[in-house]
Amino acid sequence: MAILVIGSIGLDTIETPFSEGPKTDILGGSASYFALAASYFDRVNLVAVVGDDFPSALVEVYRARQIDLAGLQTEPGKTFRWGGRYHLDYNTRDTLFTDLGVFGAFAPVVPNAYHSSEILFLANLQPHIQSSVSDQLGSAPRLRALDTMNHWIASARDELTEAIRRVDVVLIAEEEARQFAETPSLRAAARFIIGLGPRSLVIKQGSYGALLFTADGAFFSAPAYPLEEVRDPTGAGDSFAGGFLGHLGRRLAEGASLTLADYRRALVYGAIMGSFACEDFGVERLRRLTPDEIAARYREFVTFTHFESDW
Amino acid sequence: MAILVIGSIGLDTIETPFSEGPKTDILGGSASYFALAASYFDRVNLVAVVGDDFPSALVEVYRARQIDLAGLQTEPGKTFRWGGRYHLDYNTRDTLFTDLGVFGAFAPVVPNAYHSSEILFLANLQPHIQSSVSDQLGSAPRLRALDTMNHWIASARDELTEAIRRVDVVLIAEEEARQFAETPSLRAAARFIIGLGPRSLVIKQGSYGALLFTADGAFFSAPAYPLEEVRDPTGAGDSFAGGFLGHLGRRLAEGASLTLADYRRALVYGAIMGSFACEDFGVERLRRLTPDEIAARYREFVTFTHFESDW
Repeated sequence: MAILVIGSIGLDTIETPFSEGPKTDILGGSASYFALAASYFDRVNLVAVVGDDFPSALVEVYRARQIDLAGLQTEPGKTFRWGGRYHLDYNTRDTLFTDLGVFGAFAPVVPNAYHSSEILFLANLQPHIQSSVSDQLGSAPRLRALDTMNHWIASARDELTEAIRRVDVVLIAEEEARQFAETPSLRAAARFIIGLGPRSLVIKQGSYGALLFTADGAFFSAPAYPLEEVRDPTGAGDSFAGGFLGHLGRRLAEGASLTLADYRRALVYGAIMGSFACEDFGVERLRRLTPDEIAARYREFVTFTHFESDW
Repeated sequence: MAILVIGSIGLDTIETPFSEGPKTDILGGSASYFALAASYFDRVNLVAVVGDDFPSALVEVYRARQIDLAGLQTEPGKTFRWGGRYHLDYNTRDTLFTDLGVFGAFAPVVPNAYHSSEILFLANLQPHIQSSVSDQLGSAPRLRALDTMNHWIASARDELTEAIRRVDVVLIAEEEARQFAETPSLRAAARFIIGLGPRSLVIKQGSYGALLFTADGAFFSAPAYPLEEVRDPTGAGDSFAGGFLGHLGRRLAEGASLTLADYRRALVYGAIMGSFACEDFGVERLRRLTPDEIAARYREFVTFTHFESDW
């Protein structure tokens, strides 16, 4: 029982209104956030690439969370680097630079030992690579999910449609759902995306929470956690995916057949892990969580959302 | 037992991407939306002003919902008129024109019969008028609430602060809360506003729902209803206030002392009435609701938000 993630590992440089100068070359990338968040729920297998400049101290961040690194490829060259600057409201950011390095030629190879992974998460990547990884695994995974971004919707729409046809769950940001489905209505966008094959769609709304739509017509909403202070929202969406699929992986490991109730709670665990990710720079908060902190925040979400009780 | 609302009545001209030309001189104004929404929960007393051009057929809209019109003042001159155009995403609109007419000299007088109203809602108005109405009522109302807008925050900040000190509940849009409290953090904005005296703050987030903060540190979140199609979002915030205070008025009429549980459900009834308001132009949908439709949507909200159940 494990969750397999394919995504990026990067060295990020992040500036926020409160960072007192840039934080330089901190651990980032979709696979890092996802893997660390999911590691509190289930075993995690990681497929990603770093350059030969990647600090070994950072490899220890994954090891400390028992993340399996058999799929971590090291290639000659530089690790993917990204720099971004956030503005006061944290809803807009400027990309300062993007150096793909070895990630530009990433050709993921899934180790044989990973072929028994029950859940596959295809983090934001070129859609034809997402499809090829899904195909490498044949019919093995019980649940496949992908994330994507505006760039692929604009530049590789047909490829992305092919990738979406292969998965059970799509996780996508609100504006990207509208862009892909070419409609302002989220309900119509949900019908369009689910019409391509997925059984569920998660629409991420950043500081407003997330929505779940299913092929059966069910709908569910999870708010965002009301953070006192957002220190760094980088990776919140991938951490959300880690909590969401992590909870489903944990349920499968318990022998459960996944029900709508599991998906509803998964959405809440997604919101929880996304909120923790924002509490510190990079993956810092996700490194030092405890199961008790996650459970306490889950109980807080009950009090935030349930109104049919008289407490 | 009744809810007293002071606000505007207007003749609106509204254009949307799907309106096939403008809808001209339809019934609008904060008091109209609020009163119609609240009328499904409690008795409503209305204080507002119209010009002598106001069509008597529109007066019947209030009467049909048993809204008390002893406080409806008719003055020589023209009724307040507003024109707006919505864009495709409905989150931005252009004001095409504003003709204050008799509303420009509105000096609300609360009829004696209204002095026993248990709840007072001061819809968006010049803050010094809000304060003067609140003072006219002395210590009578058990609950006072107000709404406001960016214009008063920018042009009458001290007056607005004085008005806020007089009420128990502030209802305000997210961006206006940030503007008034001068912070990007909604938690910090809530502390600032509640620090002025109100026991509760409702932050309206449009198509994302609403948040409740209380002086005791409680927090609650209600999502927006996932509408298939938004026809006209005008008045959604005032309809929200009508559902919110309507439910609290109904509870007081039942002899209840208001608890946090009542406020949580009030937030949901606010979201429900705001969603109905968007389903048709102007107040059309609010005119022809049934208690069963409201109850059915309430049950839907349970399924949208409660995750600690195995249905």
